[in-house]
Amino acid sequence: MEVRVRAPGKIILAGEHAVVHGSTAVAASVGLYTYVSLRFPTPSDNDDSLNLQLKDMALEFSWPVDRIKEALPEFGSSLSPTPTSCSIKSMKSIAALVEEQNIPEAKVELAAGVSAFLWLYSCIQGFKPVTVVVNSELPLGSGLGSSAAFCVALSAALLAFSDSVSLDMSQQGWSVFGESELELVNKWAFEGEKIIHGKPSGLDNTVSTYGNIIKFKSGALTRLKSNMTLKMLITNTKVGRNTKALVAGVSERTLRHPDAMSLVFNAVDSISKELSAIIQSPAPDDLSITEKEEKMEELMEMNQGLLQCMGVSHASIETVLRTTLKYKLASKLTGAGGGGCVLTLLPTLLSETVVNKVIAELESCGFQCLTAAIGGKGVEVCFGGSS
Amino acid sequence: MEVRVRAPGKIILAGEHAVVHGSTAVAASVGLYTYVSLRFPTPSDNDDSLNLQLKDMALEFSWPVDRIKEALPEFGSSLSPTPTSCSIKSMKSIAALVEEQNIPEAKVELAAGVSAFLWLYSCIQGFKPVTVVVNSELPLGSGLGSSAAFCVALSAALLAFSDSVSLDMSQQGWSVFGESELELVNKWAFEGEKIIHGKPSGLDNTVSTYGNIIKFKSGALTRLKSNMTLKMLITNTKVGRNTKALVAGVSERTLRHPDAMSLVFNAVDSISKELSAIIQSPAPDDLSITEKEEKMEELMEMNQGLLQCMGVSHASIETVLRTTLKYKLASKLTGAGGGGCVLTLLPTLLSETVVNKVIAELESCGFQCLTAAIGGKGVEVCFGGSS
Repeated sequence: MEVRVRAPGKIILAGEHAVVHGSTAVAASVGLYTYVSLRFPTPSDNDDSLNLQLKDMALEFSWPVDRIKEALPEFGSSLSPTPTSCSIKSMKSIAALVEEQNIPEAKVELAAGVSAFLWLYSCIQGFKPVTVVVNSELPLGSGLGSSAAFCVALSAALLAFSDSVSLDMSQQGWSVFGESELELVNKWAFEGEKIIHGKPSGLDNTVSTYGNIIKFKSGALTRLKSNMTLKMLITNTKVGRNTKALVAGVSERTLRHPDAMSLVFNAVDSISKELSAIIQSPAPDDLSITEKEEKMEELMEMNQGLLQCMGVSHASIETVLRTTLKYKLASKLTGAGGGGCVLTLLPTLLSETVVNKVIAELESCGFQCLTAAIGGKGVEVCFGGSS
Repeated sequence: MEVRVRAPGKIILAGEHAVVHGSTAVAASVGLYTYVSLRFPTPSDNDDSLNLQLKDMALEFSWPVDRIKEALPEFGSSLSPTPTSCSIKSMKSIAALVEEQNIPEAKVELAAGVSAFLWLYSCIQGFKPVTVVVNSELPLGSGLGSSAAFCVALSAALLAFSDSVSLDMSQQGWSVFGESELELVNKWAFEGEKIIHGKPSGLDNTVSTYGNIIKFKSGALTRLKSNMTLKMLITNTKVGRNTKALVAGVSERTLRHPDAMSLVFNAVDSISKELSAIIQSPAPDDLSITEKEEKMEELMEMNQGLLQCMGVSHASIETVLRTTLKYKLASKLTGAGGGGCVLTLLPTLLSETVVNKVIAELESCGFQCLTAAIGGKGVEVCFGGSS
């Protein structure tokens, strides 16, 4: 018995940083996935363990199911039908289970991910022996929501075989969850994100769960109905960032220049709203797809300027901007800035030759380039064989 | 009898483009000069011509004084004590005089400069034979106010020997003009600028005449009393720009995104005001020079971001930004953008070694680098030998 789930990453189209200061932001799912497959052993397998394989890191962890039962006696008999937060007591027991696996101390995030895995597994599946295989197209820690995609895919895969969810297992290929199932997946994923990040905004798991494009302001999320397909080049500068320090830097600059910065945040709010309006405007309306793309490019360029005004750019981001500008393509950083990823809109009519040229030039600078559609479906499930 | 005059160029410290939309801007003189020397022939020289030597272009023009008298009969007998605009009739006669000198048709700006020269000479000096030598440290047409510096230096040199101005010719070295003389120089230079540019703002000639730092908003100029010496690296990208097209581009973007752009212009206004306040704050106050420089750097970075938001950056500007960012130096474009010049603040405590490294790296990209103090004196005069 096997289930395979995929959950997309996210990008921020407009409004990062300014959203912390009350502006509207717009996020979208990106067609790069984290895959989680779940396989229950048959009695003849004679396997009584919980196995976690992280393919991208070539890592494998294994616990005898009885060991988990012993460490977390509060679970197993009564599964949690509604998502709950991990108590400090459970967290300590989980930490002990993680420690037994000899994860290098430097890999704090990996340990946090494994902890989230153990929590979601215990809550949703109890202590059934199972093998979980994870692989991902999302670069880790680069602001594309890789941890949320992991939590969403994992929650969905675990829920697929739980009593909380009823799915049509006879369907072929990837299929979406129902509205109530999605809500459950999203809530569980959020609990996982809390274990990994402490105080996540909930945006990443929501985008990964529901897909499409989401507007958010002051903690409230609104799902937009997008009427256009957008293709983006995502350039991972591979420059590590300290998100907390970048957010604090913007706040400090705001204290030093309150008038100018408040105007900048309001300008971002206006840009996010314009962007949302374009995305939602009816498909065949007075604006052609090219006109819409040009408007979006202009708004991206404007937002990038405002992000530079906030002081969150970086030499590596400037290099990407300068390179794509040569090809008359609009780019902006996405997420925290200070490195991380840069978005470049690839217009529908842009030739593949130009795209390849830009990618070659960016890769020659040592960057990693990915192309993906944005605003596509959220988490999807596939039963049976591989897909 | 000889007089030598030097007039500085200008840079815009903050507010370019936004000033067109009502924001405050701040300009400063830059310690790069256009030199004009005037030598009257002695009777034994037997020279009855007006000679203009443009040293930087290795060009020389010469007219018999009688030829000018014939072409411009309205001048000579009564010199104009107050600056007046060139009439269409005079402009036509001057055009004929310029045409006789076989200036290549492509050099429209050169012809305009020579026209301004003939106008100022005829108005201020009548038809005395004289040799005028011009050389300049300012790159032409790169937004550093080279034409205004030419008009200011020329007007000042011509006025130095006129009845309108009384100067102490016994002074050694460079000396400044009196307040009323400066006013006259500035007005004449503005008339010259009108011949070259059509509708100049008057900012460039005012900065070149008075020096120091000037705040301007909605056409009104305020001279600031600066209390700090600032050193700038000026990088000439050598990318030619179309100022009119850039200004029009910002206006078009403003029509497309009125809300966002109006907030951006207001943010620039706030930045210009903050900058003016720092510049004017008393010398030994609670802020050390380093703290002031850091504040200015932050404001320059913010202004640059807002200029990028307006869409007036350019790949060459990005290259300069990226390069100086590596050395933790703040830069912004100055003037119209789309190429042209980029300013980089050189903090007082920055080592010469680092400055040389940055310059070497920028020059290896094909850019021209100049370093200069900003906010220094305006037009100055020197009698007798060279200085």
